[in-house]
Amino acid sequence: MRDLRRCRSALSLNTATLGHRRAIEDVVDLCAERGFGAIAPWRRDLANRRTADLASRIRDRGLTVSGLCRSTDFTAPSAAGRQGAIDDNARALDVAAELGAACYVLVVGSLPVGERDIEDARRQARDGVAALAERAREAGVPLALEPLHPMMAADRSCLNTLAQALDWCEAIDPDRRGVLGVIVDAYHVWWDPDLAAGIARACREKRVLGFHVSDWLRITRDLVYDRGMMGDGVIDLRRLRGWLEAGGYAGPVEVEIFSSADWWTRPEEKVLDVCLERLLTVC
Amino acid sequence: MRDLRRCRSALSLNTATLGHRRAIEDVVDLCAERGFGAIAPWRRDLANRRTADLASRIRDRGLTVSGLCRSTDFTAPSAAGRQGAIDDNARALDVAAELGAACYVLVVGSLPVGERDIEDARRQARDGVAALAERAREAGVPLALEPLHPMMAADRSCLNTLAQALDWCEAIDPDRRGVLGVIVDAYHVWWDPDLAAGIARACREKRVLGFHVSDWLRITRDLVYDRGMMGDGVIDLRRLRGWLEAGGYAGPVEVEIFSSADWWTRPEEKVLDVCLERLLTVC
Repeated sequence: MRDLRRCRSALSLNTATLGHRRAIEDVVDLCAERGFGAIAPWRRDLANRRTADLASRIRDRGLTVSGLCRSTDFTAPSAAGRQGAIDDNARALDVAAELGAACYVLVVGSLPVGERDIEDARRQARDGVAALAERAREAGVPLALEPLHPMMAADRSCLNTLAQALDWCEAIDPDRRGVLGVIVDAYHVWWDPDLAAGIARACREKRVLGFHVSDWLRITRDLVYDRGMMGDGVIDLRRLRGWLEAGGYAGPVEVEIFSSADWWTRPEEKVLDVCLERLLTVC
Repeated sequence: MRDLRRCRSALSLNTATLGHRRAIEDVVDLCAERGFGAIAPWRRDLANRRTADLASRIRDRGLTVSGLCRSTDFTAPSAAGRQGAIDDNARALDVAAELGAACYVLVVGSLPVGERDIEDARRQARDGVAALAERAREAGVPLALEPLHPMMAADRSCLNTLAQALDWCEAIDPDRRGVLGVIVDAYHVWWDPDLAAGIARACREKRVLGFHVSDWLRITRDLVYDRGMMGDGVIDLRRLRGWLEAGGYAGPVEVEIFSSADWWTRPEEKVLDVCLERLLTVC
């Protein structure tokens, strides 16, 4: 396994971790000062500024962009709504390309309100990703399918396991042209009895585009916004990273913590300090 | 598929649905009056009364016992703790036998506080179930492994998918002596991309000991106690029952709703009326 103290370029900060309270330019500077090597902004961070300016700043500070978050849901009640999502995601791909993002992160959506047919939602989402794949190839930005925890299956994502994400990759991109891969987010997949096998397969099939870390708190009070800092929960993060690196993964380790009642209430500088310390001691 | 209006004997009420506020004797009477055919009590319902008396009352009212809930966690920090759990569960098996319960429901436990090794927890739990299986055969009460939703993997159960439960059944009871099976609880498994295949396998391997129904609310406010009434959420319960019955399942359809802020605050009589109506119209 890599010694992360010697791989600062691999240490990435997903801006959601700070709750989107500070301007992205400040966040870039704060990360660079502390020795992070990469950053993963959200589209909302980019509102009301020129992408090229932000891209320059990120480069100037010595950072790379480990990913751009995240897609508009591919599921919708109407065909027009689904096409609208594809078009919107295609525009985001152009932004990702201009930023030099290593991937565009896909959270695919799930059941439209009032619907119960999750198999149909899955077909819609997979068709949408397939339609976007060609645009991704043109833009030169790989699509990163992120399976979300099954507790988010009703409203956020009908893509819920690593195996399912890899099956979609094989169905949509059987020739493995580098256009489609997966994010392994520890929070979403840690519980999976087939995780070791899934990670081995993902590595073998050259699909791993990112590794996100946070922690599962034993007492979890909210289904979305109560993630823990690495080391404060039950996930054996180092074991997961070991599986990935045994399979050849050498990409970023990206902190992504949604924590409305805790970490998002603390000063950004302190949060970043703790993230970095835990990346080096726990992950 | 069965017409449940003609299968009243299959309609079961898990007493957790009423929040354990009324004495079990009253609950038995209320269920019988409404035409339920079965009941699934919890061990806590049985405190301070003779099991034989309760068994008589249940029989006299024309009900059967679809299951006894539930096991003491098999996982523990010490070997003595784990043996204690097995012994405690063996005593519960005797109670289940006296009640004439169709099965003893196993929720296997997960990580002891402070632990992060879920693979070890899974070994502990599986070993515990294996140790109990012989006692179950002697008592004549099958053990029903209930995989719980992955959001309960940290503290309640390290058994999280139907496939995993079926693998444990095959490992522990390869000769299929009727000592070990599974509960398919819609709430826990509805999200699983492999659910149709898993149910088909469970039927083929003669493992299905029960089918529990409730609903997943699109907005879920608590990881344990915010289940919805059938029809109020996103699960296509009839499709699930269809898969089970296509595989030959002809057992009970048991309502089990944990709902501390909603259904547990309503009068038991009204809750039962709604359960019955939804069983007949939604499930």
